[in-house]
Amino acid sequence: MYDIAIIGGGPAGYSAAINAKILNRSYIWFTGKTPPKKVIKAELIRNYLGLSDISGENLFSAFESHIAALGVEKTPEVVTGVYDLDGKYALLAGKNEYEARTVILCTGVETARPIDGEDEFLGRGVSYCATCDGNFYRGKDIAVLCYDKAFEHEIEYLCTLAHTVHVIPTYKDCGVKAANAHMHEGYPVKFTGGMRLEKVLFKNGELAVDGVFVLRNSFSPAKLVHGLKTEGGHIVVNRALATNLDGVFAAGDCAGRPYQYAKSAGEGNIAVHSAVEYLSK
Amino acid sequence: MYDIAIIGGGPAGYSAAINAKILNRSYIWFTGKTPPKKVIKAELIRNYLGLSDISGENLFSAFESHIAALGVEKTPEVVTGVYDLDGKYALLAGKNEYEARTVILCTGVETARPIDGEDEFLGRGVSYCATCDGNFYRGKDIAVLCYDKAFEHEIEYLCTLAHTVHVIPTYKDCGVKAANAHMHEGYPVKFTGGMRLEKVLFKNGELAVDGVFVLRNSFSPAKLVHGLKTEGGHIVVNRALATNLDGVFAAGDCAGRPYQYAKSAGEGNIAVHSAVEYLSK
Repeated sequence: MYDIAIIGGGPAGYSAAINAKILNRSYIWFTGKTPPKKVIKAELIRNYLGLSDISGENLFSAFESHIAALGVEKTPEVVTGVYDLDGKYALLAGKNEYEARTVILCTGVETARPIDGEDEFLGRGVSYCATCDGNFYRGKDIAVLCYDKAFEHEIEYLCTLAHTVHVIPTYKDCGVKAANAHMHEGYPVKFTGGMRLEKVLFKNGELAVDGVFVLRNSFSPAKLVHGLKTEGGHIVVNRALATNLDGVFAAGDCAGRPYQYAKSAGEGNIAVHSAVEYLSK
Repeated sequence: MYDIAIIGGGPAGYSAAINAKILNRSYIWFTGKTPPKKVIKAELIRNYLGLSDISGENLFSAFESHIAALGVEKTPEVVTGVYDLDGKYALLAGKNEYEARTVILCTGVETARPIDGEDEFLGRGVSYCATCDGNFYRGKDIAVLCYDKAFEHEIEYLCTLAHTVHVIPTYKDCGVKAANAHMHEGYPVKFTGGMRLEKVLFKNGELAVDGVFVLRNSFSPAKLVHGLKTEGGHIVVNRALATNLDGVFAAGDCAGRPYQYAKSAGEGNIAVHSAVEYLSK
């Protein structure tokens, strides 16, 4: 039985793992089978304090160096279910079962139904983060596929940078008002291009763009943990990152916006401190 | 008028400043007059993800390099009051007044508790600003409670005005040399008087004065911002780091435990995103 089980191999997971290690708690860290795509493919990260203008790949390398220096171990398995066993939790990962007194969910936000070509052009014209990648499109033509009004301030920001912004809201009454914003109806069927994304295809017609921002909420970790309270696709947590389930904490994107590396690292840090406090009760 | 005013020169302040810069918002960043001692003096920081086993001094250097790379500007002034002007805030820093639509408090946690009587005689003998109020004490006897070498030039200035200046430094090797400056050891326990302040009391002894200047780098947030809700010495915030006052956000140690660099950097990141969302409403 472990003191702490950490689920997720993104920045929040890394941060939680180093903190669990430093605080001398027994832990198991499920990183999944692939490195975190969103981090690695980021072209340039400007706001991870202390590491200015770093690529996702180099930031990920810095994280790797950090865990290597501390001797933090990964368990590259995918957890498919977490079950409350009254005072402890059972975690299923494929055929294996583990037990832990606390669980820290760092599962990120899933991109539920990707557009055809979305994965292919991720980091080569497809971006999920206006504040991260907006600067690459200064004076250029872009499209924004927007799934929720909550993202409209990100579109406004992109309008201050790009030449033309084709806004494709998946809902009614999009409130973006910028002069260089053009509204489009319909849902993209495909992203196409060569080395980089070049076009957004619709059933009837297409848009030639230099890049497309996909701004969406999706996936509920409620699937993973029975009884976990979520809201709008995010796990409901308090300031200590405790969920509605005793001993279960959440950190990073899965715990809410903004989706940012520094925020995720900070929350991995907080969540372990909260878990340790819980364990010492 | 600025979009965002950031108060505090610790990790949360640095993080907020780089995010405000990257998001193309007009901002003013009040760092205070001295670098953050707590960061710089840390011997070894093990859990700032991406920068393993780093000294406080080197971590601070990395922060400095980051702001230099982005061209982030500091305003090395101490804010002594934030006032709600119905939809915007006025910030007083010495003789200067600034206005901002949002305020991000990154003031850290106070290590110095106010002196008994300090609040009571504020504006009636207690002052926080030599350049603002020095003239009221021409030819009079005053005391200066000084928390940092960085304020010594303000004491020198007061010595050109007042008759006698009783200097009470909270550190060693105070460098004030004026002929009318008298050094005192010990820490005041109380300020007393009638309509105005009359005496500074010590454990053993007292000083009869017309006024006392308290020169410190930061003030408790509740004192700084009228009407701000605090609890147990921390500013009450929600997950978006919004306080009870519209447009006022808090990040880092002042917003609650754990007191951790990564947590503070993450929260500076979050607070700016929340401020930008607020501004776009």
